[in-house]
Amino acid sequence: MSKVYLNSDMINHLNSTVQAYFNLWLEKQNAIMRSQPQIIQDNQKLIGITTLVASIFTLYVLVKIISTPAKCSSSYKPVKFSLPAPEAAQNNWKGKRSVSTNIWNPEEPNFIQCHCPATGQYLGSFPSKTEADIDEMVSKAGKAQSTWGNSDFSRRLRVLASLHDYILNNQDLIARVACRDSGKTMLDASMGEILVTLEKIQWTIKHGQRALQPSRRPGPTNFFMKWYKGAEIRYEPLGVISSIVSWNYPFHNLLGPIIAALFTGNAIVVKCSEQVVWSSEFFVELIRKCLEACDEDPDLVQLCYCLPPTENDDSANYFTSHPGFKHITFIGSQPVAHYILKCAAKSLTPVVVELGGKDAFIVLDSAKNLDALSSIIMRGTFQSSGQNCIGIERVIVSKENYDDLVKILNDRMTANPLRQGSDIDHLENVDMGAMISDNRFDELEALVKDAVAKGARLLQGGSRFKHPKYPQGHYFQPTLLVDVTPEMKIAQNEVFGPILVMMKAKNTDHCVQLANSAPFGLGGSVFGADIKECNYVANSLQTGNVAINDFATFYVCQLPFGGINGSGYGKFGGEEGLLGLCNAKSVCFDTLPFVSTQIPKPLDYPIRNNAKAWNFVKSFIVGAYTNSTWQRIKSLFSLAKEAS
Amino acid sequence: MSKVYLNSDMINHLNSTVQAYFNLWLEKQNAIMRSQPQIIQDNQKLIGITTLVASIFTLYVLVKIISTPAKCSSSYKPVKFSLPAPEAAQNNWKGKRSVSTNIWNPEEPNFIQCHCPATGQYLGSFPSKTEADIDEMVSKAGKAQSTWGNSDFSRRLRVLASLHDYILNNQDLIARVACRDSGKTMLDASMGEILVTLEKIQWTIKHGQRALQPSRRPGPTNFFMKWYKGAEIRYEPLGVISSIVSWNYPFHNLLGPIIAALFTGNAIVVKCSEQVVWSSEFFVELIRKCLEACDEDPDLVQLCYCLPPTENDDSANYFTSHPGFKHITFIGSQPVAHYILKCAAKSLTPVVVELGGKDAFIVLDSAKNLDALSSIIMRGTFQSSGQNCIGIERVIVSKENYDDLVKILNDRMTANPLRQGSDIDHLENVDMGAMISDNRFDELEALVKDAVAKGARLLQGGSRFKHPKYPQGHYFQPTLLVDVTPEMKIAQNEVFGPILVMMKAKNTDHCVQLANSAPFGLGGSVFGADIKECNYVANSLQTGNVAINDFATFYVCQLPFGGINGSGYGKFGGEEGLLGLCNAKSVCFDTLPFVSTQIPKPLDYPIRNNAKAWNFVKSFIVGAYTNSTWQRIKSLFSLAKEAS
Repeated sequence: MSKVYLNSDMINHLNSTVQAYFNLWLEKQNAIMRSQPQIIQDNQKLIGITTLVASIFTLYVLVKIISTPAKCSSSYKPVKFSLPAPEAAQNNWKGKRSVSTNIWNPEEPNFIQCHCPATGQYLGSFPSKTEADIDEMVSKAGKAQSTWGNSDFSRRLRVLASLHDYILNNQDLIARVACRDSGKTMLDASMGEILVTLEKIQWTIKHGQRALQPSRRPGPTNFFMKWYKGAEIRYEPLGVISSIVSWNYPFHNLLGPIIAALFTGNAIVVKCSEQVVWSSEFFVELIRKCLEACDEDPDLVQLCYCLPPTENDDSANYFTSHPGFKHITFIGSQPVAHYILKCAAKSLTPVVVELGGKDAFIVLDSAKNLDALSSIIMRGTFQSSGQNCIGIERVIVSKENYDDLVKILNDRMTANPLRQGSDIDHLENVDMGAMISDNRFDELEALVKDAVAKGARLLQGGSRFKHPKYPQGHYFQPTLLVDVTPEMKIAQNEVFGPILVMMKAKNTDHCVQLANSAPFGLGGSVFGADIKECNYVANSLQTGNVAINDFATFYVCQLPFGGINGSGYGKFGGEEGLLGLCNAKSVCFDTLPFVSTQIPKPLDYPIRNNAKAWNFVKSFIVGAYTNSTWQRIKSLFSLAKEAS
Repeated sequence: MSKVYLNSDMINHLNSTVQAYFNLWLEKQNAIMRSQPQIIQDNQKLIGITTLVASIFTLYVLVKIISTPAKCSSSYKPVKFSLPAPEAAQNNWKGKRSVSTNIWNPEEPNFIQCHCPATGQYLGSFPSKTEADIDEMVSKAGKAQSTWGNSDFSRRLRVLASLHDYILNNQDLIARVACRDSGKTMLDASMGEILVTLEKIQWTIKHGQRALQPSRRPGPTNFFMKWYKGAEIRYEPLGVISSIVSWNYPFHNLLGPIIAALFTGNAIVVKCSEQVVWSSEFFVELIRKCLEACDEDPDLVQLCYCLPPTENDDSANYFTSHPGFKHITFIGSQPVAHYILKCAAKSLTPVVVELGGKDAFIVLDSAKNLDALSSIIMRGTFQSSGQNCIGIERVIVSKENYDDLVKILNDRMTANPLRQGSDIDHLENVDMGAMISDNRFDELEALVKDAVAKGARLLQGGSRFKHPKYPQGHYFQPTLLVDVTPEMKIAQNEVFGPILVMMKAKNTDHCVQLANSAPFGLGGSVFGADIKECNYVANSLQTGNVAINDFATFYVCQLPFGGINGSGYGKFGGEEGLLGLCNAKSVCFDTLPFVSTQIPKPLDYPIRNNAKAWNFVKSFIVGAYTNSTWQRIKSLFSLAKEAS
């Protein structure tokens, strides 16, 4: 199929022309309709209008489609590579189930034990990294970065394009590895692991290079300097950086920081959670193979994992306070964040802190199509068994829609209770996977009990679930808890599990008030037919991200992602995410030939006359910053006098 | 004088036309000169050329001058206000000298004692703030911010314009207050306190509003979503923020964060150094009076100061870990930074960390006019007695210029030894003021001794100075120390005093190597005739800021300012400085009417068929992210099939 190229100016021109005509026409039609209401009955005209609208819309869509640029210019054609699939990722793998699924086994005290949370199958054990291992990783990464830091964008783009190609062609394998180690379903992996990673890569390929170009800035406003001073920011790699990532998306959370690090010319040592060492080993190997295939140094990417710190083994803290890291991206929980920040304070390492949230899903009175909304709510709550930092933690519904929505959700969950289990091997029909471990089940049950005691109604689930087929798996019942109020613990604490919490609001402002009543500030959504009202809510939410009439799309869109208040600070993703991994160097230079800054004579050491010098510099400042032309002229005369 | 307005497009057009003609003409002249060398002897033509160049240049400058926009549109006309000058700021004030200039007096254990470091005169004592005081400040600031956060830019601009106007018309008073409390000279105050503050205000008036406009971003690259998803970042005030600032520029360091905080719609509690409480009280009162005059709430700005933490009084740490602060800007030293960061980790408050530097002033072989350079070096080293975070800490000279520059500097300092003292009252002729205290004199002397023991040559000064007129003042001799090498402690530790350190480099690369050998990374300068070489050096320096053929102009230019490595992280100043005090909210929305995200049927709970759903979502991902049109068409067919 031949390709038609239009440059962006042409497209923009076409778009705006079509849109302008369309608007003009709509306006005219409205005017006609207002003046002649009977026109609506004129069937012939109506058909004409509909056809015209459809034609213009089709033209608009077609123009957009043919303008989709080809992504693979020859400068970064993807390189093919392959690596063997781990045994446990094979279809119908018959792994042995362990009695204990603990990561620590007293018989192998320096090893981390890996299991499938959905089945309890044993995946292998890996030696916890030591301080010497960490030093070696940082050193190897640093060596590799010293040349990679000077690589041109075509090399970096080639790596990303190759990775993109591999992922697109190996979705089954990647999903199976992620599911085996995290217990989620293939569908959850598809949307939460693969789609968002490909979006990040494709976004970086398309927009990354532009983001990293030097940014020209206005020079000083000083009247005497502005003629000849230029200013810009140049973005340079930092060196070796680190990310400490959570277990809930073993593929995406691991790859996200790696993609950004490599594209910005950095090397990276990723520390994965001890819960998902097995899959992280495979995914990092995947990246290293990709680098090798592109003739780049695989040492650019290193993987670290440690047992939690004990009296005898402080490797985890050694890692966080390592002076070799120029930046740390931490994705995890609040208690760990305090610890990480204290360690990083020792080495003065900047940290981007991405913690949990208590994201509100706000449904206003004007919201329509509650059935469709209920599907989004269920997906946003139960995907990955609710183990999502931007999962729906609270559904806040304004009074007109509350009872209806509660009924729809309850009916759906009653008629078709969500089935739990593992679909990795058999592709049996399940809706929700396992949780990473059972260590928070007591807490979740207590949160539900506390709410019920304070007046909430528990309509579905509410406690752990012993799966008949997978007794060693970690399952929690899909739960529906309604009439929740801010005083209940479950309204204030992150659940990070499959509990659908519903709160009733009196009106739009009460929705905002309820949403802002939790000590987090990550994301949120607002649904309503009135865009102005939706924007009002979006602007009033104390969060770092908001989706209007959609769920979590701010994350897909590669906007800078990050929270405020209890959800941490700093951004990853998007332009700001890339720039944050760079030394943004402020550079000043002369723009006119033969003109440069000199120390004026009255200010040169030794100061000949302090009184004269003071008057000189005072006049200089007036001349530089006054808004009055007359004052400026006076100051110029005064300068001439004092300079003599 | 009537004003001529040209819009920026017209100016740009004029500029580029003039520049293009000028370049064309220069090229032509070069070509002529190359082909006919004898032309130079043709006097008539030479005069013609000179006249033409001069005319074009004059035209260019004139166009720029008349295009200078009037700063005060009626929407933010400055409001006049006044406040009484403190007694000690009067000319010829006869304050009593104290025997001890310690900030702590056992007779007044909960008070901070203030003195003039140049004379030892007693300025007053102020009660150290308690935890209750701090709570009250945060609460008052929060109340004031709740309305200020919604103020439009015209109100914010009016406050800045009024402040600008006051400073411009009260330079003497401001300089005298700053000098009295810090011991610097009026000239040092003029350049280091007043000029840079006015530049910051004027820059913010001119460019701030544009920086805070919502930033539209490309939506997702996903083929199915990109048609109807819009994305932007909206910048919202954080609430109450804080800055903890150092004593070296009591006016500028205090006002800088206040200007940025107010303009971004925040309230601020500033914690000043216990060394400069007296002047900080006056300067904050100045801001509050300005706010009052503009009918704004003066509670937006609060001043805190505490004695260093002791067992009985932990107010300083209470301040830093106060959960009421959404952001902290810290300007200070490394040891304090570790402490601050640990406190801020408790409340998860983001911190911008601006520490010291070991800035190199690099002179390449191609650099010319060493006399002029020596003036810049002396100003950059001895201004404010070297107490500048971006002061020149090392002059690194490539071999061709080293001996000459050493001789020039030594001759200048020998012929006219810099005179120390105070010029606040008498405007007597002095070159250098006092230091803030004598508590680092031992350290400075030890650094010099260590260097001399390791082979450096001490050409001037090297030890503390007992001033005959001001025996209670804190003076250190202007020092010239040459032949310094990286092994010496003075090459690795920040001096923050009047010591001119010179290092000899073998060549350009060695200059870079020496510059990068210290564990800091704040600023630096490079001087040379070859711009390409200068850029190479600028790009090779491991610092956050570089000035090419100038000193410290990156700071004046309102580029984002901040260091890397041992100099801290984060930026204040410029666009990034303003945006850093905002919640950068990522917002996603629909751009086409009647189109919104729906959960596709195969993925809706309950999942009817996991195998089908997996194939559906796999095809969806291929369709969304493939670069092949053929694959996309196949995926669309497959989607249609699976969706049924």
